[in-house]
Amino acid sequence: MGDAYSKLLERMKDLGRLDAIEALLDWDQQVNMPPGGVQGRAEQLSLIAGLAHEWKTSDEVGQLLREAQSHNGEFAAVTNIREMARTFDRARRVPTKLVKKIAHTTALAQNAWATARAESDFAKFAPWLTRLLDLKRQEAEHIGYETEAYDALMDAFEPGAKSAEVEALFRTLRDATVPLVKAIADAPNPPDSSILTRHYGRSAQQSLSRAVAELLNFDFNQGRTDVSVHPFCTTIVPASDVRLTSRYEENFLPAGMFGTMHEVGHGLYEQGLLKEHAFTPMGSAVSLGIHESQSRMWENMVGRSRAFWEFYYSRVQKTFPDVLGSVALDDFYRAVNTVSPSLIRVEADEVTYNLHIVLRFELEREMISGKLAVRDVPTAWNEKMGDMIGIVPPDDARGCLQDIHWSTGTFGYFPTYAMGNLYAAQFFEKAQADLPDLNDCIRRGEFRPLLDWLRENIHRHGQRYRAGELVQRVTGRPLSIEPFVKYVTEKFGAIYGLT
Amino acid sequence: MGDAYSKLLERMKDLGRLDAIEALLDWDQQVNMPPGGVQGRAEQLSLIAGLAHEWKTSDEVGQLLREAQSHNGEFAAVTNIREMARTFDRARRVPTKLVKKIAHTTALAQNAWATARAESDFAKFAPWLTRLLDLKRQEAEHIGYETEAYDALMDAFEPGAKSAEVEALFRTLRDATVPLVKAIADAPNPPDSSILTRHYGRSAQQSLSRAVAELLNFDFNQGRTDVSVHPFCTTIVPASDVRLTSRYEENFLPAGMFGTMHEVGHGLYEQGLLKEHAFTPMGSAVSLGIHESQSRMWENMVGRSRAFWEFYYSRVQKTFPDVLGSVALDDFYRAVNTVSPSLIRVEADEVTYNLHIVLRFELEREMISGKLAVRDVPTAWNEKMGDMIGIVPPDDARGCLQDIHWSTGTFGYFPTYAMGNLYAAQFFEKAQADLPDLNDCIRRGEFRPLLDWLRENIHRHGQRYRAGELVQRVTGRPLSIEPFVKYVTEKFGAIYGLT
Repeated sequence: MGDAYSKLLERMKDLGRLDAIEALLDWDQQVNMPPGGVQGRAEQLSLIAGLAHEWKTSDEVGQLLREAQSHNGEFAAVTNIREMARTFDRARRVPTKLVKKIAHTTALAQNAWATARAESDFAKFAPWLTRLLDLKRQEAEHIGYETEAYDALMDAFEPGAKSAEVEALFRTLRDATVPLVKAIADAPNPPDSSILTRHYGRSAQQSLSRAVAELLNFDFNQGRTDVSVHPFCTTIVPASDVRLTSRYEENFLPAGMFGTMHEVGHGLYEQGLLKEHAFTPMGSAVSLGIHESQSRMWENMVGRSRAFWEFYYSRVQKTFPDVLGSVALDDFYRAVNTVSPSLIRVEADEVTYNLHIVLRFELEREMISGKLAVRDVPTAWNEKMGDMIGIVPPDDARGCLQDIHWSTGTFGYFPTYAMGNLYAAQFFEKAQADLPDLNDCIRRGEFRPLLDWLRENIHRHGQRYRAGELVQRVTGRPLSIEPFVKYVTEKFGAIYGLT
Repeated sequence: MGDAYSKLLERMKDLGRLDAIEALLDWDQQVNMPPGGVQGRAEQLSLIAGLAHEWKTSDEVGQLLREAQSHNGEFAAVTNIREMARTFDRARRVPTKLVKKIAHTTALAQNAWATARAESDFAKFAPWLTRLLDLKRQEAEHIGYETEAYDALMDAFEPGAKSAEVEALFRTLRDATVPLVKAIADAPNPPDSSILTRHYGRSAQQSLSRAVAELLNFDFNQGRTDVSVHPFCTTIVPASDVRLTSRYEENFLPAGMFGTMHEVGHGLYEQGLLKEHAFTPMGSAVSLGIHESQSRMWENMVGRSRAFWEFYYSRVQKTFPDVLGSVALDDFYRAVNTVSPSLIRVEADEVTYNLHIVLRFELEREMISGKLAVRDVPTAWNEKMGDMIGIVPPDDARGCLQDIHWSTGTFGYFPTYAMGNLYAAQFFEKAQADLPDLNDCIRRGEFRPLLDWLRENIHRHGQRYRAGELVQRVTGRPLSIEPFVKYVTEKFGAIYGLT
């Protein structure tokens, strides 16, 4: 029994190593690879994905799992066996051929998407989207589901999440958000966000981002930062080699600044997983929603707080004396917290952001069910933008082509972003209760207490608890929209002078 | 039969893809990886190496080979089957466990070597060297050999090469070199090489290197250049993603400049292999000796020629006006062709370079046979340096710790460097005969004719011909030291005014 678990653990680690090699191939494609490499890289990704799939669905693993499941060992073993069984059951239903086909197609589709976005030409991406939807529908059918195919896909990112529940959660969130957005729109004295669109030199931004990452305790001995078109965080060796990317825009300071803090939040979680559990579920993140709670907390609850800028603004002023020298702290703080309808999700403010997610959730759910045809996606997108956010994209590059996700076949991923905002607010509320001087720490530039709290309460547990269970254990109650609504109402009420 | 070959071809390509993934893991370790990644990377490399080994030695491949060997198809198939059989026969003799052990040990040993070299502390590397020698001896015993274990190792880099023959070749080379070195040392008017050790800014050097790579037709759509401690060239996707690295020293211009031309030579070969044969022997380089002939030709026969500098010197002068503004072309040309005993192989001149190789060949042959104990390596190194080159390293960093090779377990690799010099001279002599205006082309900055000649005569053939056969076919005679000796005698005779 113990022996079966040891063997299973070895297989698990080899699988984790293989997944991490796939992550390196992907990171390299986005950061380094010359254009000529596209076709060969697609073949390599397909090879590794197929291999990982064969391993994780092998009869040998099935047999080891059956033997090990009676294992009554300590919780690490119990967690690893439980999660390995989940992976095995899910993977076993999908033919290797389909897995390889998806890996190969997405590697090429990303390239087509990049071109389509650059040229704002949806027609160049549409055939790939059709192909990917077809493949992902097949995958969902193989996996199986209770009520709708979309659930089977979402489960890969947020285990156990159900569309109907997410829909209900998002409905209350939307109902609470819309009046706030309206009140803010009517407020008489909006911030002047134009100071953020002045000229900010790229290399100065890059140095500043590095300094911010260090300030927030991202460990450069166990990670690195680079530049890519679409910022992301990936793990090459768990806890030991964690890589972030940022994107810098010379006439929009927040893209690089808050983008970096966001990815640092992801990176701190990955660096906080326990090394002794590397390449196993006990050394892996719970879910994408929980992951996103970490990035959003550092980006928004910390990075967009008044306390943070009381500490850090002078440094940013010194970096850009010409553009910010005469801008007061309060004006800068209000500017980075401007709430206004906007086109691009990753640049959206904290209040309207979730509406971008609700839109994507509704659209991709209909795409997977077949209710929405690919050719109608741009129109549907633009209509929903008008209805929910109040503006219509002038082109598809700033509309339905803006995100990389669909080109990577990750349908069911978007909802985890809004869930992350909710988890973040609920965790942060508890952290503030546990650390009464948290705000003062931030004001003094001390970020270690919050990080230690996260390490203790979230990071070190790996996948020991599922997302819902973790939230319950840490905060004493199930996930709710309430802490988030309270947080944004108070914060933006003060900024916009609402009563 | 045709079916067996098709299946074999698929297995071969998957193997090629896997080998290239290993190359990416290695490239990333040398260029990007943060320190924390070392242990996890060693595990990943070991995993892939073990997997590749299992694949290439599988019963299935053996069976497919037997069926396909009666295949009388066109030469590409014949070549692929022949070389796959060679790989299979060789690999099949080595246990997977040993292969994984070697991959794991070398990933860690490289790290130990880097530390040992930085601190010039041989004791920090010695235990790793002992371990690696032991593992490589085991490997050689498994592979088998006629007269000595070293042959089995050298065969991995230069198929068919035999120590006794290399020894004889090197003896005549040494006999021809020593009197020339002596005559040069006695020449009354040596070049002033101090102009090369002035201050050359790193980023200006880097831009210049990029320009040189473009000038020599390295294709940045199918490759990239980076910085690493030990310059190298590697292929991530055959012909489509070829990567070079350089190293820049602020007080030694040639390291970056000629180092880049050298790696570009390797890169042009890799980019010149045929894409339709990617990941198979028909789309792979013949041997390391032939590979080195390409790098040395571009670095020395082209890059250190007077014709090249007549074209390019003004550009370099413009880049470094303060240090080179008043240096005449002829003084610069003579400086970059200074012949003098030196400590570092990669910085050695064309004449003494081969002596550095003979030294390494003799030492590692004795290390493998067990005649030379690891603890005696530094002393033996220093004694041979004194005997053959006339100077003794002041420390091991500039002595036996200078090269990465032993830490990567690549014993038997060094001889291919000197063989590359010989191949290069013999090929270049023929290229000059075929292209009577080659020198004028170089003088006008036209490098395409030489590249086309190399593509036609060498690159496009992949592994169709073994090294010896290729030399015979291209130049009409077997490998000889004569073209090299003639080349250096004439070139340096002119530079040093020898009669």
